[in-house]
Amino acid sequence: MSQVVTTVAELRAALAALKPARIGMVPTMGALHDGHVSLVNEARSRATHVVVSIFVNPTQFAPNEDFDAYPRTLDADLKTLDDRAAIVFTPTAREMYPEGFATGITVGGPSTGLETDFRPHFFAGVATVVAKLLIAAMPDIAMFGEKDYQQLLVIKQLVRDLALPVDIIGVPTLREADGLALSSRNAYLSTEERGIAARLNVILKEAIAAARTSGDLRAAEATAIEALWKAGFAHVDYVAIRDAETLDHITALERPARILAAAKVGKTRLIDNMAV
Amino acid sequence: MSQVVTTVAELRAALAALKPARIGMVPTMGALHDGHVSLVNEARSRATHVVVSIFVNPTQFAPNEDFDAYPRTLDADLKTLDDRAAIVFTPTAREMYPEGFATGITVGGPSTGLETDFRPHFFAGVATVVAKLLIAAMPDIAMFGEKDYQQLLVIKQLVRDLALPVDIIGVPTLREADGLALSSRNAYLSTEERGIAARLNVILKEAIAAARTSGDLRAAEATAIEALWKAGFAHVDYVAIRDAETLDHITALERPARILAAAKVGKTRLIDNMAV
Repeated sequence: MSQVVTTVAELRAALAALKPARIGMVPTMGALHDGHVSLVNEARSRATHVVVSIFVNPTQFAPNEDFDAYPRTLDADLKTLDDRAAIVFTPTAREMYPEGFATGITVGGPSTGLETDFRPHFFAGVATVVAKLLIAAMPDIAMFGEKDYQQLLVIKQLVRDLALPVDIIGVPTLREADGLALSSRNAYLSTEERGIAARLNVILKEAIAAARTSGDLRAAEATAIEALWKAGFAHVDYVAIRDAETLDHITALERPARILAAAKVGKTRLIDNMAV
Repeated sequence: MSQVVTTVAELRAALAALKPARIGMVPTMGALHDGHVSLVNEARSRATHVVVSIFVNPTQFAPNEDFDAYPRTLDADLKTLDDRAAIVFTPTAREMYPEGFATGITVGGPSTGLETDFRPHFFAGVATVVAKLLIAAMPDIAMFGEKDYQQLLVIKQLVRDLALPVDIIGVPTLREADGLALSSRNAYLSTEERGIAARLNVILKEAIAAARTSGDLRAAEATAIEALWKAGFAHVDYVAIRDAETLDHITALERPARILAAAKVGKTRLIDNMAV
């Protein structure tokens, strides 16, 4: 008689005679900076070998966004990685989306609101490409920056829902001396814009302090939004204090919370977030 | 320096020190009949070990369909499989769709029309559960019956698009002596309905002959639809001659074509298809 198993875990155990080495993956869009290097280093500390993917994924950009302008610096990226990565995966768009490609993955839950309000197709593009990258490499762990906090939660939901056999590890945001979160898009900023950009993290810290003191989360958000406009941001998409695990709306700081923000300096859209 | 690879195939080759045995999978909804056994036997002839999954997937049934009535015969199924399968995977709905499940997979291309016209959510349910089952078992090959021909093409598209490392093998439909395609839903048929059901395959064969002779595919379809009504079918959903690889509409038999049909006998919906 057959062995009958009821859970994915049992099934996997029954199938497992696999993979001797532990593989860590760091999916990126290239233009690598110290934030990416910290992801790679974290992967190295947890896995035997590291695979870094570099792919500027067209399907997560809207037509009016910066897909064409997005920095592509492969030679420098390879130098940065040096022998930190065992394998660098640099697929073409045609390799990822072959002729006639017709499959889409959508993730509900934490994708609701925030970035989705301003980039409605963003997370479907991210979920599909990340699923493909994870299926392609089948790593044991994969690292994602907390800088893209909503994306991190969406990917955790995706991986849990599809039971992809990979642990998703969030890595804390790296910051400049003045607190600006490292981002490949910081390369777009003029000197003047760079000065304005540095205010984002300061204003979020002030909002956290205000939320903690007053307990009025909506007032803290409103004050931060006003402060960003006054600091010279060209547009404030949102400042929101949410449940840190689900991104659900909250009215009090009873469980772990996160403040998330998106705002434009000139034409450059910056995002940031912090634990409250 | 790192090894740089550009295709999924190279990536996999670089990662591969995996899996000594060859695994064949047969995803089913149980109520196993000789058609399923032929899938398992085909898997055994091509792989070292066979995994059979038995899961009546709720998300591919609409509320008005036969999810509750669908035959569940686990004890008999296990006896049927005996030691043909190394592993039988019988997940609960909660194992496949954990609390808070929020991910969906849609496949375009061959899912357009035909079954989708009558079961609009069917292929999203199928694509999501099949992706999960393949990700869970990560077989080298997986067998699907040609009986569900459109489903077979949708799954091939899904696997190609997500680059799942599995070969999808279509297995020819098994038939009763009178040509009725084996189906778990045949168990619903009364003696009288069973007699009507047997006309479906005969009328499709006649339509193929007519299409070949006249070259008029629309006339052949219309004649078959009329013949099904006259034979006593309660409703004819469709009879369609399509491109065998894409299910695109065709007007002439220039490339491989397939005739596909769905019709109800009493309350039981039957499908069938054949090469033209």
